[in-house]
Amino acid sequence: MATAAEAHAMRRAVALAARGLGHTSPNPVVGCVILDAGGRVAGEGWHQRAGGPHAEVHALRAAGERARGGTALVTLEPCDHSGRTGPCSQALISAGVARVRYAVADPTAQARGGAATLAAAGIEVAAGLLAQEAEAVNEPWLTAMRRGRPFVLWKYAATLDGRSAAADGTSRWITSPASRADVHRLRAEADAVVVGSGTLRADDPHLAVRGREGVTQPLRVVLDTRATVKPGARVLDDAAPTLIAVAEDADTAHLRRLPGVRTVRLPRAGTGLRIPALLAELHGRGVRSVLLEGGPTLAGAFLAAGAVDKVVGYLAPVLLGAGPAALADAGITTITQALRLETTDVTRLGPDLRVTATPTAPAPLAEEN
Amino acid sequence: MATAAEAHAMRRAVALAARGLGHTSPNPVVGCVILDAGGRVAGEGWHQRAGGPHAEVHALRAAGERARGGTALVTLEPCDHSGRTGPCSQALISAGVARVRYAVADPTAQARGGAATLAAAGIEVAAGLLAQEAEAVNEPWLTAMRRGRPFVLWKYAATLDGRSAAADGTSRWITSPASRADVHRLRAEADAVVVGSGTLRADDPHLAVRGREGVTQPLRVVLDTRATVKPGARVLDDAAPTLIAVAEDADTAHLRRLPGVRTVRLPRAGTGLRIPALLAELHGRGVRSVLLEGGPTLAGAFLAAGAVDKVVGYLAPVLLGAGPAALADAGITTITQALRLETTDVTRLGPDLRVTATPTAPAPLAEEN
Repeated sequence: MATAAEAHAMRRAVALAARGLGHTSPNPVVGCVILDAGGRVAGEGWHQRAGGPHAEVHALRAAGERARGGTALVTLEPCDHSGRTGPCSQALISAGVARVRYAVADPTAQARGGAATLAAAGIEVAAGLLAQEAEAVNEPWLTAMRRGRPFVLWKYAATLDGRSAAADGTSRWITSPASRADVHRLRAEADAVVVGSGTLRADDPHLAVRGREGVTQPLRVVLDTRATVKPGARVLDDAAPTLIAVAEDADTAHLRRLPGVRTVRLPRAGTGLRIPALLAELHGRGVRSVLLEGGPTLAGAFLAAGAVDKVVGYLAPVLLGAGPAALADAGITTITQALRLETTDVTRLGPDLRVTATPTAPAPLAEEN
Repeated sequence: MATAAEAHAMRRAVALAARGLGHTSPNPVVGCVILDAGGRVAGEGWHQRAGGPHAEVHALRAAGERARGGTALVTLEPCDHSGRTGPCSQALISAGVARVRYAVADPTAQARGGAATLAAAGIEVAAGLLAQEAEAVNEPWLTAMRRGRPFVLWKYAATLDGRSAAADGTSRWITSPASRADVHRLRAEADAVVVGSGTLRADDPHLAVRGREGVTQPLRVVLDTRATVKPGARVLDDAAPTLIAVAEDADTAHLRRLPGVRTVRLPRAGTGLRIPALLAELHGRGVRSVLLEGGPTLAGAFLAAGAVDKVVGYLAPVLLGAGPAALADAGITTITQALRLETTDVTRLGPDLRVTATPTAPAPLAEEN
């Protein structure tokens, strides 16, 4: 049983971990609190950016000699490997902590084993304290590690009758400023923002994060099968890096001289590109979380590929009765095939509703798409 | 200033009024509490059904002599006319009450004037206590009196992407049992339930209230321009009265011998019938509140006619990506014409969300539709 002080410290560690969201990829977010032998907080820390010290190292530094005989509360199993920094298991042993409580086991082959190393060194080790909260804060990274592809959050904005624009294509603005600001929060927490060429043509979106300080800009990804993006498109500016995914036979000559813009060639699937191939490509580039902001066609392709882990819908109290739907063909033709979700949160944002939901069945990566 | 006892009594009167919902049309719902001269509750009552005693009469009977010198709290201005029962103003005067507090003024030409009559008899009269709550419980009737047509509540059920059925037309069940039970509550509170012939053909709905005791069944209304309804349709059974609205030139021979089924001829508008003409017809039959359960086409016609006062959407955590939208053409082509609403309530019903909203601009009855 964890003491009240330990539970309180783990809750604090989860909050610290959240500070790293959007800055640590391809690493997880991690928070750590060190209690001294008397159960008082001696130090705390969090993993602030990839390549920087791990949470345990920050916390041990802050605790100094007070860590000896104390307890380390860590949101994720301490790592056991030497990457750009040394293994945290060794750091905890050297500091002389008597107990380590971690919330969630490390699912990766390269880093796991920390708990065993600690136990072998005579440290009392226990897992599972506040596991649910620690899972939630690390959901994108944990999902990416378990599925072997980036976590995908599909965000859409629609009217109460499910339209994303009016009949003539106009859509500014269906949702409120509060909802639009919230989307920038999602972008800031994502490693990559993905749109299709249809959205590019219709909206000329910029996709960089605005209105927030100190953010790591996400990689802007455009699925552009035939490389139709124009050199003047806003998504090609230097506010953030950009990746244009095109078909293997696309002509990309006009994109070669743009600084900060890279192209990648992917196999075709139907009228677009293979979603699993895109996700594998992004995973290989260290992308652990994707914010899918694409239009109805791209969202349908991702859903059909079983490649959506979470849905965030911004529903505006507006009726249109005509215009494009928020979601197009996802391969569903009858009600028994409907994609059912579990609603995990409903929040009012100004006049709008934000609905967060997850597919009830795990979304496997489809073999073919 | 009302005393705490008076405010408490008025709140009770509002709750009593609500017990009459679904049973009093074409009358309003009304609740009344009588306090004796010492401020203690002496009697209470509510208008239970059209043709029965008014709320004040019930409450005065219960209070007996204790009403003398006391205070009457009434949710609606006491009536001043003799309908099927005598004027309540006179009953209050005869009972010797010293004060009358009512929440909302009577907007009708025939009944208003009660306050003036009471004041002329030397009774202290004040209006406005808990007016908002009393307005809300009587919203359908007050709206009907002010607009000269029935209050219209449009109810729809849809997926998070705004579909009311899958691509092949299947829709059982998109929403949960909790949502479907809630629809029966809406039906029980409505004087009439309206659908179009498209819904009739697709779903063969029954439209009567099930699963609730002691309800007054609503009038079932089918907009059936060309009188295509088949004699075996479930809506034509004897569970509730039915009105089939057809075009002036429709052939209704096959409907003549059905007991409990009436037809009414209305002028055409576009491909359907004139919504204002329908509402005028229903108003003339004493219908004060309409639950519009029609499909996307009929809902669009009502919205285009400015004839929707409230929207209740049951949103299921389901995605389809194809299939009919919950709302079809409402005459809106560009975003600036969008029908904007104010969300007044969001409630989780099992896995679903129930969103209640009202058009932000008052909905005038369009001259032409």
